[in-house]
Amino acid sequence: MNYFTGFTCVNCAAVYPPDRDLLLCPGCENLLEADYDYASLARELDRDALWRRPDDVWRWRELLPVLDPAKIVTLGEGGTPLLRAERLARACGVRELWLKSDATANPTGSLKDRSITVSATKAVEFGYGVLACDSTGNKASSTAAYAARAGLRSVVFCPDDTPVPKMAQAVFFGARLIRVRGHYSEINAMYRRLIGSGQVKWYDCGTDNPFRYEGKKTYAYEIAQALGWRAPDRILHPAAGGMSLAKTWKGFNELKRLGWVDALPRMTLVQGAGCAPMVRAWETGASRIVPVDRQPTIASALAAADPGLLGARAMEAVRASGGAAAAVPDEEIRAAMRDLAGEGLFIEPSGAVTLAGLRRLVAAGQVDRSESVVCVLTGSGFKDFERIVEMVDIPNRVVTGYDSMLAAAREVA
Amino acid sequence: MNYFTGFTCVNCAAVYPPDRDLLLCPGCENLLEADYDYASLARELDRDALWRRPDDVWRWRELLPVLDPAKIVTLGEGGTPLLRAERLARACGVRELWLKSDATANPTGSLKDRSITVSATKAVEFGYGVLACDSTGNKASSTAAYAARAGLRSVVFCPDDTPVPKMAQAVFFGARLIRVRGHYSEINAMYRRLIGSGQVKWYDCGTDNPFRYEGKKTYAYEIAQALGWRAPDRILHPAAGGMSLAKTWKGFNELKRLGWVDALPRMTLVQGAGCAPMVRAWETGASRIVPVDRQPTIASALAAADPGLLGARAMEAVRASGGAAAAVPDEEIRAAMRDLAGEGLFIEPSGAVTLAGLRRLVAAGQVDRSESVVCVLTGSGFKDFERIVEMVDIPNRVVTGYDSMLAAAREVA
Repeated sequence: MNYFTGFTCVNCAAVYPPDRDLLLCPGCENLLEADYDYASLARELDRDALWRRPDDVWRWRELLPVLDPAKIVTLGEGGTPLLRAERLARACGVRELWLKSDATANPTGSLKDRSITVSATKAVEFGYGVLACDSTGNKASSTAAYAARAGLRSVVFCPDDTPVPKMAQAVFFGARLIRVRGHYSEINAMYRRLIGSGQVKWYDCGTDNPFRYEGKKTYAYEIAQALGWRAPDRILHPAAGGMSLAKTWKGFNELKRLGWVDALPRMTLVQGAGCAPMVRAWETGASRIVPVDRQPTIASALAAADPGLLGARAMEAVRASGGAAAAVPDEEIRAAMRDLAGEGLFIEPSGAVTLAGLRRLVAAGQVDRSESVVCVLTGSGFKDFERIVEMVDIPNRVVTGYDSMLAAAREVA
Repeated sequence: MNYFTGFTCVNCAAVYPPDRDLLLCPGCENLLEADYDYASLARELDRDALWRRPDDVWRWRELLPVLDPAKIVTLGEGGTPLLRAERLARACGVRELWLKSDATANPTGSLKDRSITVSATKAVEFGYGVLACDSTGNKASSTAAYAARAGLRSVVFCPDDTPVPKMAQAVFFGARLIRVRGHYSEINAMYRRLIGSGQVKWYDCGTDNPFRYEGKKTYAYEIAQALGWRAPDRILHPAAGGMSLAKTWKGFNELKRLGWVDALPRMTLVQGAGCAPMVRAWETGASRIVPVDRQPTIASALAAADPGLLGARAMEAVRASGGAAAAVPDEEIRAAMRDLAGEGLFIEPSGAVTLAGLRRLVAAGQVDRSESVVCVLTGSGFKDFERIVEMVDIPNRVVTGYDSMLAAAREVA
């Protein structure tokens, strides 16, 4: 009952068997793409039988690159709500708006759990003792959580200005946290050099892990299933490297190939205006993404000045799908956070950019008002709590006794 | 397709129709219990058809006291993971241990979403404009979130020393927060007086709402379904008023009545040692719960010195089920938080008491080592983040450049 058949390099087309422990293509150092036996899947996998499984990433295990389901390391990640937002749809000017809240329903409070569950499983399959990653914070706390769940150790490398809740969570899960001076793309380059050096025998859950990213395809499966096996017209993802977007695109293409959906969504990426190299490439029509000088953005989790090989894959998905891209300034991100709070959702700046991006793209005429749209929300407000605290005014006044309480109540009513 | 038939008073047995807007029994001021047409439910509701619905509280809508499903106010609450914990089972000395993580998979990060979704729905059904509650914090942020989702206003009353994240979250959702001097039970008494005074026309999502508590029955349904329609031998709940425990007990009794499970679990409640009036009553065999002088406990969400009418219902469930009760000191709560972090779970003190209680009860011979046990975990570590920060040591050292990074890595490896 295994349909994972191995990897193909997206550049040199070399193929590798499914039991190889791989990061980038050993031949040309480009990205690897997992392959499956789709003909057998189409014949043997009944989409209507999947309902009976727990609503998590592993509901879709036949479409994930694992060889031994007994080794799955799970915290019940994925299976997150897809919420209809009618008031916000009207406010944004689109026919139909859905919010995919990965922020508030994943075990560590961010999208990263969706992919780290797969890499933790592979670490166990391959027999590693330590999980490692570089991270702007969310990936670090997720890696630490799944290492703990698997009974393994973890080491995480973060920029020194990473939000405290993300660092505290990783350390609480038992990670060895190494804070590194510099911005994320600089740290990423050093981290990849470290892993490539062979000086450490850790399982790399970072940028180059081709198993991990397959977990992100489950966005497509969950959205399609929740909508009654159809694709929305458009999906917006926050993007640092852009792999969530690229893998959601792959997931929808798989569903089409299996005959489970008829159409494909337009993939649309959003970045903070202070660090938006992919949006720049989209706007200028450049074939290559040029790293940017990073300016401040409150979307700290998206601040990858050089999205590297992943970014190229994401841009391919945007272009192939007829999508778009938008860069949003801090003020619009804050407005989106407030709008989402107005729907009962507590989202960190980096997770809220999609709603801001949608508003921009509708205003610019790049998103049609007749569309059905999904905005992916990727991290909880608790993960970057200082940004929330800056935006709220907790009253200092404390009332004492019933009469004061009644007086305060009357002011409200 | 409506099976909700009204309410019966647990004291005077008066009955009320399902469309009445009720809090306590208008006749005798005691608690009301929702009734259903179980004979029709047993005939018409197919437990195997429920899988196809989204995995949230409303999967069980026929067993909830709503009249108009079109008015349901949801954020995708409930449907939380039930995680097998084999290492912890061995460490605690029980055959089988499951962790029900309401903490990390609910929209606002706590169990309260499971019940507030029902009261928000009733507020819309009854046509209110404002939701209100008193709260140690979690109920406040949940009430604020669901009010926002429903397009209503909210007013919440909290002790002045409520953890900042809970207050900030409520305010971010747009709640009017009124901080009140005193401990929770004092505030609760004043709040109930305020609601009873008729001076405000708010929908009360607080202690006396008989609709709201029905949402907590879904613990039973979810646990039974996840275990293949069986009850575990025992379920441990954190308890302030104890209504989650009482309603989980009701839920299992309903499932037995419907023929969906054969056995019932032993209901076991856990409180922080600094404020444990129910555990005191259990240990002394007292028929009435005597309010305690509250001492400090890090389980701030459970610090109800006087559990009132609810507490009596919970004690009935403990006794009727052959359960138990345990009070756990701060040090054991912290140890449980660390143990849960060792499984990848990030839980606030009040949410982690069940694991500490299990250890105590096994050691005391009150839980048999052959049992299968579920510990309910009720609030995210982010909700009482200061208690986490006290327990972690975020390194101050920041490494600069590849050579320092390599040296730091070698220290770990």
